[in-house]
Amino acid sequence: MTLCVVGSIAFDAVETETGKRDRLLGGAAVHFSMAASFFAETRVIGPVGDDFGEEEYAVLHARGVITDDIEHVPGGKTFFWSGRYERDVNVRHTLQTDLNVFEHFEPKLSADSRAAETLFLANIQPDLQRAVREQSDARFTALDSMNLWIDIAHDSLVRTIGMVDCVILNDGEIRQLTDEPNLVRAARAVLDLGPRVVVAKRGEHGAAMYTREGVFGLPAYPTADVVDPTGAGDSFAGGFMGCVAADDGGEPTDELLRTAMAYGTALASFNVEAFGTERVQTLTGGEIAGRVEELERISRFEAAPLVLRA
Amino acid sequence: MTLCVVGSIAFDAVETETGKRDRLLGGAAVHFSMAASFFAETRVIGPVGDDFGEEEYAVLHARGVITDDIEHVPGGKTFFWSGRYERDVNVRHTLQTDLNVFEHFEPKLSADSRAAETLFLANIQPDLQRAVREQSDARFTALDSMNLWIDIAHDSLVRTIGMVDCVILNDGEIRQLTDEPNLVRAARAVLDLGPRVVVAKRGEHGAAMYTREGVFGLPAYPTADVVDPTGAGDSFAGGFMGCVAADDGGEPTDELLRTAMAYGTALASFNVEAFGTERVQTLTGGEIAGRVEELERISRFEAAPLVLRA
Repeated sequence: MTLCVVGSIAFDAVETETGKRDRLLGGAAVHFSMAASFFAETRVIGPVGDDFGEEEYAVLHARGVITDDIEHVPGGKTFFWSGRYERDVNVRHTLQTDLNVFEHFEPKLSADSRAAETLFLANIQPDLQRAVREQSDARFTALDSMNLWIDIAHDSLVRTIGMVDCVILNDGEIRQLTDEPNLVRAARAVLDLGPRVVVAKRGEHGAAMYTREGVFGLPAYPTADVVDPTGAGDSFAGGFMGCVAADDGGEPTDELLRTAMAYGTALASFNVEAFGTERVQTLTGGEIAGRVEELERISRFEAAPLVLRA
Repeated sequence: MTLCVVGSIAFDAVETETGKRDRLLGGAAVHFSMAASFFAETRVIGPVGDDFGEEEYAVLHARGVITDDIEHVPGGKTFFWSGRYERDVNVRHTLQTDLNVFEHFEPKLSADSRAAETLFLANIQPDLQRAVREQSDARFTALDSMNLWIDIAHDSLVRTIGMVDCVILNDGEIRQLTDEPNLVRAARAVLDLGPRVVVAKRGEHGAAMYTREGVFGLPAYPTADVVDPTGAGDSFAGGFMGCVAADDGGEPTDELLRTAMAYGTALASFNVEAFGTERVQTLTGGEIAGRVEELERISRFEAAPLVLRA
């Protein structure tokens, strides 16, 4: 199946304890599509400015990402974000955000993108996500969002969530969206809004998936050297949705969704090993498969029945 | 095998959004021994005052806990702790701590307690933990600690850690102890101090185990109604160590330790379902086994090899 992603394409400047990069290819749609490209034909939709050139397209094309629907805004500048991570990389400071061409982005899907069977709405204003959803014929759709939209566009986001099959958010965002500190209750409240799958990304603590049938939990891959966490969540979503899109048909089963969680976790773990897209650019299918097997070993145990003194 | 635990025996007053209790049987050694009692003969060591009576002993005896080594301090009062949990139960405020008889506690092990094959040093001053360790002939020993001792008795704690097989701490404490924000590196640094097993308790995020051979990760049981989290970590340790003690012999294998992590997780999940020891008092072996099987279903996935487009 074909997978279509709509979201930001960006240049990032990133500073960590170990290094600094002034201009990295980034943005949610880029990280997502690079990860998804290992699994399914992936089409990326987003705006770029005059500063987005051959070199950047080459990175996406090397992974087979279809860039026909990238919208070049003449005279414009590409979305720019800069941030600094503390020694504890869980603490991030945004230094600068220049929306540039992203400010007036109105996504238009080509016939091919509309026909994609799987759609991911990366973190953009929820009205725009809804407009994309309405243009798409996808059979399985998912969205990401952020604290800003939960704050200033709550009702619109809730409406949009009602139109997708799957929500992929940080655990803190799921709590904030539902005003419910218990994540199990919060995830159930999101299911009540319409989707049949809620994925909670928990960073170094792993990820959890909630459906009406039950819960699935997976630890993160234990990475000792996190170089740059930027885009980890988008790479997770790309691996997850790519895995769903790689399947031949119908509603994804619980078994497929669990496998997709593992592939998402693997892709996120590679993403953080280098700056920007650097690690995923050199990644191989064998490395991905190896890490998923490793995750299986990390999370395996025997529920050996003991003779309990009850 | 027999399991011996040394630590606090307390009365707790707990306030949550949903209720309030003025006097609950509590303390690390109590929660630990109640949980461990499902798996192995459990001996509890700690001081109590005149206010600790028939009713409290009856709770421990109902679970078969051996209380011969509980030290009654005539004229003394039992350790008292009171705290309040916010609506988000991850946020706890300590309101009062009266050490009482615990202030001058000098643990003395009887011949039977010295002979116990398994020993748990609950969170007490690390010099005392070391004194207990030196009295014990246990083949497998573990300890817990807290931020206070990491702050004011760091060197003593490090020395004590060098004398045990296993360290069971919150993830934040492992980071603090090693001044290393990355948990994988932090856990390795603790392994370098001597123990062969490091367990990181992560509350609602589950638990992880680090050995020289590798990593094991397990999600928490998804509890929608957390009534009182007090003692969850001690119940985890009790289930974990009880499971190790239930095994017949020798060094616990990686497989046994993984199973023990699941039983610890199950016991912690029951502990939080009611105030104090109330839930564990009514718990059955069947319920524990059922929850461990459920944890196995929650964390199971197929590393189905996909045809990757690499």
